[in-house]
Amino acid sequence: MTKPSSLRNLFSDTPSMQKQFQTLIDAVQPVDGTLTEAAQAHLDDLTKPRGSLGRLEEIALQFVRATGCLKPVLTKKKICCFAGDHGVAIEGVSAFPAEVTPQMVYNMLSGGAAINVLASHSGADLDVVDMGVNHDFPETEGLVQRKVGRGTRNIAEGPAMTEAETLIALMAGAGIALSAHEAGYHLLGTGEMGIANTTPATALYAVLLGIAPETIAGRGTGIDDQRLEHKKTVIRRAIEINQLHCGTPLGTLAALGGFEIAGIAGFILGAASVRLPVVVDGFISTAGAVAAMKLCPASSGYLFFSHLSNEQGHRTVMESQGVRPILDLDLRLGEGTGGALAMHVIEGAIRIYNEMATFSSACVAGKEGE
Amino acid sequence: MTKPSSLRNLFSDTPSMQKQFQTLIDAVQPVDGTLTEAAQAHLDDLTKPRGSLGRLEEIALQFVRATGCLKPVLTKKKICCFAGDHGVAIEGVSAFPAEVTPQMVYNMLSGGAAINVLASHSGADLDVVDMGVNHDFPETEGLVQRKVGRGTRNIAEGPAMTEAETLIALMAGAGIALSAHEAGYHLLGTGEMGIANTTPATALYAVLLGIAPETIAGRGTGIDDQRLEHKKTVIRRAIEINQLHCGTPLGTLAALGGFEIAGIAGFILGAASVRLPVVVDGFISTAGAVAAMKLCPASSGYLFFSHLSNEQGHRTVMESQGVRPILDLDLRLGEGTGGALAMHVIEGAIRIYNEMATFSSACVAGKEGE
Repeated sequence: MTKPSSLRNLFSDTPSMQKQFQTLIDAVQPVDGTLTEAAQAHLDDLTKPRGSLGRLEEIALQFVRATGCLKPVLTKKKICCFAGDHGVAIEGVSAFPAEVTPQMVYNMLSGGAAINVLASHSGADLDVVDMGVNHDFPETEGLVQRKVGRGTRNIAEGPAMTEAETLIALMAGAGIALSAHEAGYHLLGTGEMGIANTTPATALYAVLLGIAPETIAGRGTGIDDQRLEHKKTVIRRAIEINQLHCGTPLGTLAALGGFEIAGIAGFILGAASVRLPVVVDGFISTAGAVAAMKLCPASSGYLFFSHLSNEQGHRTVMESQGVRPILDLDLRLGEGTGGALAMHVIEGAIRIYNEMATFSSACVAGKEGE
Repeated sequence: MTKPSSLRNLFSDTPSMQKQFQTLIDAVQPVDGTLTEAAQAHLDDLTKPRGSLGRLEEIALQFVRATGCLKPVLTKKKICCFAGDHGVAIEGVSAFPAEVTPQMVYNMLSGGAAINVLASHSGADLDVVDMGVNHDFPETEGLVQRKVGRGTRNIAEGPAMTEAETLIALMAGAGIALSAHEAGYHLLGTGEMGIANTTPATALYAVLLGIAPETIAGRGTGIDDQRLEHKKTVIRRAIEINQLHCGTPLGTLAALGGFEIAGIAGFILGAASVRLPVVVDGFISTAGAVAAMKLCPASSGYLFFSHLSNEQGHRTVMESQGVRPILDLDLRLGEGTGGALAMHVIEGAIRIYNEMATFSSACVAGKEGE
């Protein structure tokens, strides 16, 4: 899986790429907290007891702060499902064989995967992004080709990617978000497909957040006790062997991440740079989000965490970030499925903000004594 | 608020009504557990790791069992928002004046309430049912007239309703569900509007479930500490003064309930009698559901509990029933708002069940060793 691809070879100008990446990071502004008061006043004037729509109101406030619009628009939504293969799959850390990654990409392209159904159900468009699958796909509608390599290297033996490859993946993800912004999308969602990718995600959490990997390593697609113990050993070995590469967030992402995880991180940074909110899916997508937040803390305000994954460890990670995800439905599929479901809640929050009557317009009496 | 209405006067044949009600109860069959295995096998054949869609899979299974269809259909949805006034409002247990009940009904009829926005967002039709508002509404599209009285009597002084009135309200609710079934709806949702109605709901929970009312009495639309203490006193007095009427579920519902709560209970029983699943909204709707389940335990299998209300006590009630609601968004508005949001999740679950590819059809490899 470590054969160099054409894109990888093309890339020889690392300093220029680093500069471009720095420009991207610099473009991310903190969300606009000055709008909170006016948005809250508007929410309080809607015909309901104050605060009675709970998290819908919080979501609307965050959307206003992120977009910088007191009259936010949310109709066009897109989910990008980033796919990549992982050298570490060879260690036998997944219940499924590595060839399932391209098979599932084909399944998504023909509309049969869970994310097709749930994206359609939420009225979101769907693109599948080949960030680094170990397979050459023909040009297909709905497939965005950004292959950095045919799978990463085995993190149990050394860095998954070079920093240069990681920058390519980051900028590719950012470019996709910028294109979506130009195409008029108001909300993006992340998803991923990559056999074995809970292993690099767990290693990333361990190093980026300082969490003991044993406490967050989980069963992924459904491995048994024995394989879980083996997976923990592989993760520990990966962290140990890559220790010297993990001095910076970029180095850590390169050493322990994956093409699709870096793509997601870049996608988030690109979206944040143009104030486009992003719904983050589950365990793997959150690893991309954590990388993005470590690379650029200001990006956090643009993120909605869609659901609490049933993958062991996601709760610990979410709590470490002070985040309470929108949904808790025991999902552990990835692909963007939780994000698609959460988009409905977010859109509902914005519709509440935009469409409800006010006390005065509806001639409804307020709370007694107010 | 205790003026007898025309409907109330019309009703003089209690034995016949009791017989009709018994026929309704007898028509409710337990859900079909024999379908679980085949439905589970189908879910396991979809292109995802087994069980990885968590609660979506549970929801699909429950929907199959409820409807008795291995190929369930879910497109037409309707939310019925039951409105009623409460004599106990005179005790000052709510933060809002009683005239807000009819004002909010008008707001719903003109499309400005939260439930209008969220029902539309979920693609559900909405009817507002006047079960007993202390106001005469003109005939209006979207308003279903089933007024049993102009508000209940004050439960702090005696029974809210007679058993006869309660039977009328139950049968009215059931009739609405049966009409919805005839009109081709596949999923119904409950909602309610009634100033002061957390007080009767709490009293009902206390007696029907044997929970100390102090532990579940909450702030409703947002009362302060002092009023909350007063509300607890009123609830205790209501339970004490009505003790002799609370020997049966029907007697309890009559003594401590409300027209809209009885309407919801009947709506659920009517729906269950024709195997039509119902999404139960929050704190008040759940009181109707608990009454329905006490009147007819078999009805429970037809119910989806949409969300964990932020109203103090709902968690205790849900735990007492062994129920984990679908959403937890800190909502405490009622109207059916949580139900509307949960409908999206339920419909997503059914679409997953119906629309995803299978492993064989998509040429995707299964789990290793299977």
